Amino acid sequence: MDLLFNKTLQVQVKCKDCDDRRTFIRVSIELQLTSNPVHRKDLVVRLTDDADLYFLYNLVISEEDFQSLKVQQGLLIDFTSFPQKFIDLLDQCIAEQDKDHPRFLLQLSSTSSALDHSPASLNVVETNAFKHLTHLSLKLLPGSDVEVKKYLAACLATVKQEKEQLQQRLRTTEEDLSRQLSYAQQ
Amino acid sequence: MDLLFNKTLQVQVKCKDCDDRRTFIRVSIELQLTSNPVHRKDLVVRLTDDADLYFLYNLVISEEDFQSLKVQQGLLIDFTSFPQKFIDLLDQCIAEQDKDHPRFLLQLSSTSSALDHSPASLNVVETNAFKHLTHLSLKLLPGSDVEVKKYLAACLATVKQEKEQLQQRLRTTEEDLSRQLSYAQQ
Repeated sequence: MDLLFNKTLQVQVKCKDCDDRRTFIRVSIELQLTSNPVHRKDLVVRLTDDADLYFLYNLVISEEDFQSLKVQQGLLIDFTSFPQKFIDLLDQCIAEQDKDHPRFLLQLSSTSSALDHSPASLNVVETNAFKHLTHLSLKLLPGSDVEVKKYLAACLATVKQEKEQLQQRLRTTEEDLSRQLSYAQQ
Repeated sequence: MDLLFNKTLQVQVKCKDCDDRRTFIRVSIELQLTSNPVHRKDLVVRLTDDADLYFLYNLVISEEDFQSLKVQQGLLIDFTSFPQKFIDLLDQCIAEQDKDHPRFLLQLSSTSSALDHSPASLNVVETNAFKHLTHLSLKLLPGSDVEVKKYLAACLATVKQEKEQLQQRLRTTEEDLSRQLSYAQQ
């Protein structure tokens, strides 16, 4: 597992019959190496929400999937260069996200009336004087209960570990400083 | 929600075709108050494992459920006194759990070959010179993916909060002690 990108981005959410709204979503991009049964690399795109623990959207792009994505969206790069190009686009969205009229915008759009439990498209859209240009559009699926469960268990394991490290740091800080303090007071 | 009991206990695990083993399991007992559609109290018994985040067994006992449990197991107490009596039994198991031959033992027993995804009975068993006496036997169901998901989200929210409090405490401890230190060194 190779974590290539993991940042919180402002996203424009578009649903059927609801007003567009802006929210923050965490986007992570990972390269997953599998060697069983054959060596393969999959690109895993995951959307989560630090404020809503149940929010999870996933997309796994294999090298074959990428070939159809490439044809479908007229991409001129290969699978190996794709992650970095995607990250560059996301970084452009971040650079513009505080502007009133951002040139690059990340959009999460669903054809159903809410985001819950329906597929959604993650689009990187450039707006110029003439039109909206979609640089990339990825279709993500909402996480199943099993996927959300696994994701939460992984988060919990990490946060527990971080908590233990903090507890340890607090203990040593208290010890160190009170030792120094008693030494200084002598 | 009223948390009546939440402790880690040694449990003897019995499965079909496998050797008995001892492990530690967290038992929590909660009184859940619902006022919709009618006022009712449910007793929720939950088994989890701090070392295995996916492990979850549940039992919800309503007042009506308790009436059949009472008849079935010949209990002489009513629903209101049941939680404390159950807790007393668990405390007796805790008091005996370090002994080689504990008189009171908590047993988790399943008729299938492993604990995963099959109902299990949580028994409080007293062993005297003559026989094994089952004081109480509760049938628990393994948590569904949705239940495990909810449980993990609740744990994650708690641990995140605890982590933030620790971070805050570490900051104030560092500030306080270095202020005292610089004062003492003057």
